[in-house]
Amino acid sequence: MKLIGMLDSPYVRRVAISLQLLGLPFEHQSLSVFRTFGEFSRTNPVVKAPTLVCDDGTVLMDSTLILQYAEALAGRSLLPAEPQALARSLRTVGLALAACEKAVQIVYERGLRPADKQHEPWVARVTGQLLAACDGLEQAAPIMDMDQTGVSTAVAWEFIQKMVPDVVPGARYPNLVAFSGRAEALPAFAAAPHGDSTYRA
Amino acid sequence: MKLIGMLDSPYVRRVAISLQLLGLPFEHQSLSVFRTFGEFSRTNPVVKAPTLVCDDGTVLMDSTLILQYAEALAGRSLLPAEPQALARSLRTVGLALAACEKAVQIVYERGLRPADKQHEPWVARVTGQLLAACDGLEQAAPIMDMDQTGVSTAVAWEFIQKMVPDVVPGARYPNLVAFSGRAEALPAFAAAPHGDSTYRA
Repeated sequence: MKLIGMLDSPYVRRVAISLQLLGLPFEHQSLSVFRTFGEFSRTNPVVKAPTLVCDDGTVLMDSTLILQYAEALAGRSLLPAEPQALARSLRTVGLALAACEKAVQIVYERGLRPADKQHEPWVARVTGQLLAACDGLEQAAPIMDMDQTGVSTAVAWEFIQKMVPDVVPGARYPNLVAFSGRAEALPAFAAAPHGDSTYRA
Repeated sequence: MKLIGMLDSPYVRRVAISLQLLGLPFEHQSLSVFRTFGEFSRTNPVVKAPTLVCDDGTVLMDSTLILQYAEALAGRSLLPAEPQALARSLRTVGLALAACEKAVQIVYERGLRPADKQHEPWVARVTGQLLAACDGLEQAAPIMDMDQTGVSTAVAWEFIQKMVPDVVPGARYPNLVAFSGRAEALPAFAAAPHGDSTYRA
């Protein structure tokens, strides 16, 4: 299978790391949804990262849906099966995905619009939501496993610290800083670092 | 369990309809993430719709994650189990979620910003992605089941036709119009109509 998208996207990165943890080999093509929109659109006309091209040619999008397929293929999950334990884990994954979404919205507001098209009330709203999500993750971090909760949380935090550190000061989130340090040192994280490089198995 | 969020959100609506198809009873609280931000934030400080409050008090967010929990609780899925069949279904769900996301981005651009803060290149980019997603769904519609592919597709289409019909003209998508008509006539859809009403079991 082939994963398409840049590792500066937390959604691409959580897939790249999860596929490794599930023991699924994959190729990676580091295409940008902006600079290489045309090339990206030839595989997926919706131009969404991550895109996964399955071995039979089926083209998937959306990181959570891609992981659902990957787990079916691997025959095991990075989340608990028992509903109550699953709910507690999914709560954390939901916070991590919300943190990613809100951080991406700030990055897009700053990066894709001229200054006179940026709308401060929107940024203020999204910033409050981003900090609320980080507060929830900070509480969860001390007891977090390196399953999908840990992967999604660490990837969200690294993205936030690389892209909007002025909005979410690391000093306010010591548990996340410590957890992120442990995660980024792991081989699956180091093989798929945040940025524009290509994953190397 | 309690589902929080308005049925004018396609994400809230796909959960409300899926819970019914899974045979899971739920309460519904039709709170707005805008007009009732403060009240919403007392249950979920991240203020994301849908929010699901589980019976043990765990608070979930993100429609796909909520459905993952609901399926574990129900002990059955609205998607096939076999990986290749699952991939084909998840492709369609991914298209439907992308269509929702892009339509929401246009609704937000128009509704949450004064005219002089709206950025035409962004709207043009997102419009192209929305139409590409609808093109994919139009192709899939003639053979679609009323499982999660059908629910997500019909909900996406109804949202698009209610909110941005000028961007996605129904006349260009006869298969989606026909499929949507069949879906909206079903009891699970009729009990949770697009808009500001509350689901009634």
